[in-house]
Amino acid sequence: MDIAAAALAGDRRALSRLLSGVENDTVVGRAALAQLFPQTGKAHVVGITGAPGAGKSTLVNQLAREIRERGQKLAIVAVDPTSPYSGGALLGDRLRMRDLSTDTGVFMRSMASRGHAGGIARATRDVVSVLDAVGYPLILVETVGAGQSQVEVARVAHTVVLVEAPGMGDDIQALKAGLMEIADIIVVNKADKPEARQTVRALQSVRPGMRSEGHHRVSVGKEKQVAAEVAGWEVPILQTSALENRGLEELLAALEAHRDFLKESGQWRARLQENARAEVESWLQRHLLALLADEVGEASLTAVVDTVRRRENNPASAAQELLAAILAAAGGAR
Amino acid sequence: MDIAAAALAGDRRALSRLLSGVENDTVVGRAALAQLFPQTGKAHVVGITGAPGAGKSTLVNQLAREIRERGQKLAIVAVDPTSPYSGGALLGDRLRMRDLSTDTGVFMRSMASRGHAGGIARATRDVVSVLDAVGYPLILVETVGAGQSQVEVARVAHTVVLVEAPGMGDDIQALKAGLMEIADIIVVNKADKPEARQTVRALQSVRPGMRSEGHHRVSVGKEKQVAAEVAGWEVPILQTSALENRGLEELLAALEAHRDFLKESGQWRARLQENARAEVESWLQRHLLALLADEVGEASLTAVVDTVRRRENNPASAAQELLAAILAAAGGAR
Repeated sequence: MDIAAAALAGDRRALSRLLSGVENDTVVGRAALAQLFPQTGKAHVVGITGAPGAGKSTLVNQLAREIRERGQKLAIVAVDPTSPYSGGALLGDRLRMRDLSTDTGVFMRSMASRGHAGGIARATRDVVSVLDAVGYPLILVETVGAGQSQVEVARVAHTVVLVEAPGMGDDIQALKAGLMEIADIIVVNKADKPEARQTVRALQSVRPGMRSEGHHRVSVGKEKQVAAEVAGWEVPILQTSALENRGLEELLAALEAHRDFLKESGQWRARLQENARAEVESWLQRHLLALLADEVGEASLTAVVDTVRRRENNPASAAQELLAAILAAAGGAR
Repeated sequence: MDIAAAALAGDRRALSRLLSGVENDTVVGRAALAQLFPQTGKAHVVGITGAPGAGKSTLVNQLAREIRERGQKLAIVAVDPTSPYSGGALLGDRLRMRDLSTDTGVFMRSMASRGHAGGIARATRDVVSVLDAVGYPLILVETVGAGQSQVEVARVAHTVVLVEAPGMGDDIQALKAGLMEIADIIVVNKADKPEARQTVRALQSVRPGMRSEGHHRVSVGKEKQVAAEVAGWEVPILQTSALENRGLEELLAALEAHRDFLKESGQWRARLQENARAEVESWLQRHLLALLADEVGEASLTAVVDTVRRRENNPASAAQELLAAILAAAGGAR
């Protein structure tokens, strides 16, 4: 049995090895991805993002526990735990996670944010694809730090949860406008703190600009009813507290409501189509570059790039010449 | 005389029209870019980034005035002025800029952050290339808002200046770690405010992790001496104040020191080579997609993407088949 089949059959060690191959874009990893691709496209991928110190890892841990208590399987992908900026949180998280680690219904994977062929976005997408294929219906992708990784996670995830800590939403609301634009759900964590209410108000004051097309309210009552209008999605601002063990049900309901919204509005399907196209185009590029290396060679490519650097040729013409050379060589080889 | 030649000859209206063509990736724009490419690669491109409210536009305005007083030409590219998050700042900026707008030694260009074929990064890079080609030795690229646009500006710019306002560097220092990673120079603006010192201290406490390889101090004394060791670059934290008209000389000295550092360390040249390669690869992709549209057609491409969306084929194989079809068609046409 090959590694992909073993992972599909539930072998966690095979899955871990397979994920390493996929992360590092090895030949085995690529082949397994192709083999597993038919099984993908089912999981709900949720990005959990926000500043270090907002309590993301604790929240993810609690969320995992709550989901497991409901008997559902899930996978957790933690991107960038090695960042110097995440500081000492990692060891603590690992310790807190330990009681989950013997539970076969949860699969955890940590990924470094750097050093991946094709970038962290490619590596995360492929790791998520494998976890999706082997049958995890919910995949939480946790990212640390501001900037690009948070924007990239938005492209991998169906639903992006932005986690805030009290006191952080005030004078920095403007700063984070860029991050709030990508949020589908906002969580004010550590809601037991007295500053939480002010943070909620500050966030509410920024929210209207985020989603202008229509409304889609998440109302979680005693019966956990979720009213979903398909017209648009109004970003809910929820409050959670690990100390008071509060807000998890509402957050899970909001996740489900957003998934339902995506499916009912046709966005889930449109996204599958978009992703398929982007993947095909990305592979076209990779195949072409491989062909370039085979048919033209690195030395000739460098020589062409040198003429561009010296401004003796422009990039568009240089690329046209390279493409003609590839076509001639590949055509001649047939 | 064509539009590129007119722009090269100093015709500002031709330059404006040309930039629109380049921004919108028109046929004329592409042709002009290719024509102007030999003249590019000389300008020092400086990204000015930071949260709304940090006073970036005022700083850019003052910087421009200072540079003009020294008799040097410069261009300013303001990305994303239409963002709802930049609020009322724009009109004020425009008014403040008015006395510069009659000065032919300054060229200003505003760009929307959305709706560009190939993305805002592509559009910004191409606009900067044109301004470089027509002879602006210094190009300031101002971006608003957190997130992707700030990371992308880092790829366009040689030198990234992160502008902070007092009181913003405190509890959010962790949040902005991702942004600080891309900063070459940090400016605490509105340094006349009493909180400025604390912000400087907070930033200094985060700084050491940013650049670990060696040291390169900017020391601006009475004679504006700049000591440059080539080993590494230590991110300077400067203070500026529009109210007190303070810190501009130091900032200009730091910009020059960073440019010198890039040239002396070989990074300037390495970057030209990297950029040339990235441009050639990007054009290869564009040419290939054009060939795909011509030889395979949108309908067939959509059909192939549909098989991928339905998981009947995987992206790698689908791309391989499309590439084979392109090669066969292009080969047959020869």
